[in-house]
Amino acid sequence: MAAKSSKQILYAKAPEGWVDESCFRLAEAPIPEPGEGQVLVETHYLSIDPYMRRAMGSSAYGPLKPGAIMIGRGAGVVIESRHPDFKPGDAVQSEFGWREHVVLNGKGLRKLPAELKPLSLSVGVVGQSGATAYVGLMDVARMKAGDTVAVSAAAGAVGSVVGQIAKLMGCRAIGIAGGPEKCRHVVEDLGFDACVDYKAGPIGPALAKAAPGGLDVYFDNVGGEILDAVLERMNEDGRVAICGLISEYNSEPRGIRVRAVLDKSLTITGFRIGQRLDRRDHALDQLFRWWRDGELHYRETVAEGIESAPAALINMLRGGNYGKQVVRLAAAAPR
Amino acid sequence: MAAKSSKQILYAKAPEGWVDESCFRLAEAPIPEPGEGQVLVETHYLSIDPYMRRAMGSSAYGPLKPGAIMIGRGAGVVIESRHPDFKPGDAVQSEFGWREHVVLNGKGLRKLPAELKPLSLSVGVVGQSGATAYVGLMDVARMKAGDTVAVSAAAGAVGSVVGQIAKLMGCRAIGIAGGPEKCRHVVEDLGFDACVDYKAGPIGPALAKAAPGGLDVYFDNVGGEILDAVLERMNEDGRVAICGLISEYNSEPRGIRVRAVLDKSLTITGFRIGQRLDRRDHALDQLFRWWRDGELHYRETVAEGIESAPAALINMLRGGNYGKQVVRLAAAAPR
Repeated sequence: MAAKSSKQILYAKAPEGWVDESCFRLAEAPIPEPGEGQVLVETHYLSIDPYMRRAMGSSAYGPLKPGAIMIGRGAGVVIESRHPDFKPGDAVQSEFGWREHVVLNGKGLRKLPAELKPLSLSVGVVGQSGATAYVGLMDVARMKAGDTVAVSAAAGAVGSVVGQIAKLMGCRAIGIAGGPEKCRHVVEDLGFDACVDYKAGPIGPALAKAAPGGLDVYFDNVGGEILDAVLERMNEDGRVAICGLISEYNSEPRGIRVRAVLDKSLTITGFRIGQRLDRRDHALDQLFRWWRDGELHYRETVAEGIESAPAALINMLRGGNYGKQVVRLAAAAPR
Repeated sequence: MAAKSSKQILYAKAPEGWVDESCFRLAEAPIPEPGEGQVLVETHYLSIDPYMRRAMGSSAYGPLKPGAIMIGRGAGVVIESRHPDFKPGDAVQSEFGWREHVVLNGKGLRKLPAELKPLSLSVGVVGQSGATAYVGLMDVARMKAGDTVAVSAAAGAVGSVVGQIAKLMGCRAIGIAGGPEKCRHVVEDLGFDACVDYKAGPIGPALAKAAPGGLDVYFDNVGGEILDAVLERMNEDGRVAICGLISEYNSEPRGIRVRAVLDKSLTITGFRIGQRLDRRDHALDQLFRWWRDGELHYRETVAEGIESAPAALINMLRGGNYGKQVVRLAAAAPR
């Protein structure tokens, strides 16, 4: 098996503005062999996430060096094991990088429940995206029953879960998304109470109509002028969790008017799920139970083959996805 | 006694930009008589504070209507009492408004310890200003021993106490103030570890030198570009308490770049001491003990006579004060 070759995608260079295909390079390498205490995993799905844009050309996530394998979480199946806790056939999830095969030492490698199918869920609604939504709402924004909660990128991987958790916890959920079709999806398929289309005009009046009593919690994925407009609609003691600023990654950072923070005693907190690992496992357990009980709805946007990963990232950064954007690799392709 | 008249200052109109004397009007009224359950207080000191600018032409503090007596806390002495808990000669502190005599019903009227002299301390370092510093640091910014703490308007009524509390609690204190004389005062008289003069140039490099390990806590009184520059120097998981935005009250609000909030998982919280009354009394007790033990240093800027209150407010808003700006009324004038 070690003679066969395996595809991988390298990070070639930092983008100037928008990410394009020239930022990546396809490469091949022999399938690696696991050493003592290691496992060889065949990748089934790659997770495509907004933080990747932040990691490209920024030191916030540590060094992403040109020529290295592109970072990213994946889900797959153990095909060879020299680790006591894993055996061939185990479905697993971890940081894989963009490659068809990966050798891992078991640290941070999560074994997935057999019922969890497709495996892509383990990086989406029942994985990092869902856990980010849960921890952001419950721990960072300290959401409580009765709150009115708004979330931007509401049709996205994290936002779609944010509104559903809000509803499950007895809150009112207002989505913000781009275009009537996404807004329809957010309300009709995901069960949000309302959705504001930011492409239809200034969102202030639409937010006022959707949430006449104001907002208690805002879960932000986009930043920029939407964040500014939402701050004007926050209630006294409102809490804002900043999960992403996708509108700002390709341009000069934009300022928010901080006056509302003082006038209404708001709290704004930036967070990354990777820093709150103590709560992530609890979140994943709860999400799994909700999903198993049919309480969590989702849609995925699936690109086929590792070669499509750069295009999938570009599509997601431009808002072309519904729910989680993943790449399905050859090993998982429907046969 | 009711025949004698008493001076008061009315709020005449909202300022356009900077506050000027035309925003106020001097008036006279008979000295009021206390009814059953009320006390008549002779004002000794008026407290002059930045929030007054926010209340003028804003609804944040509730209606400040043209023609009404200007708002403001005061300290004074009971001269007539029909309330069981107060007797003539008691030193008291409460919301008085800008007037030489005030009738109060005892609600929110705080009796002052006999040792607390001058009475102006009860609205300053051992009063609302000190309590704002304490609650902002301990509860809002969750300061802990070993933190490096920066505070803007460090020579002002609140900022001067912030740095001293930081030192008392085992932290490193960096002031930000305007001009070499204020910076000297902050370090030499108040005991801060360092002070950055924002008038001497961009504060980024000076902050980097004063706090090479970065900042864990920022207590902000000014907002604007200083806030933006400080955010760039905050450490991971840093906490920012927004107490005031004095640089923004006279102009269009300025944006802060929120990117640092996400990249460093910062928390920014706006607060007003009036919303945290549960903690204020604890803060006042602690401040009194520190003051009595000689641990708290202070300077006051004292204007003489109720007629000087508008000029005192204007002076304070322009940064002309060291420590607490108060107005000493005729009743307390040195004889």
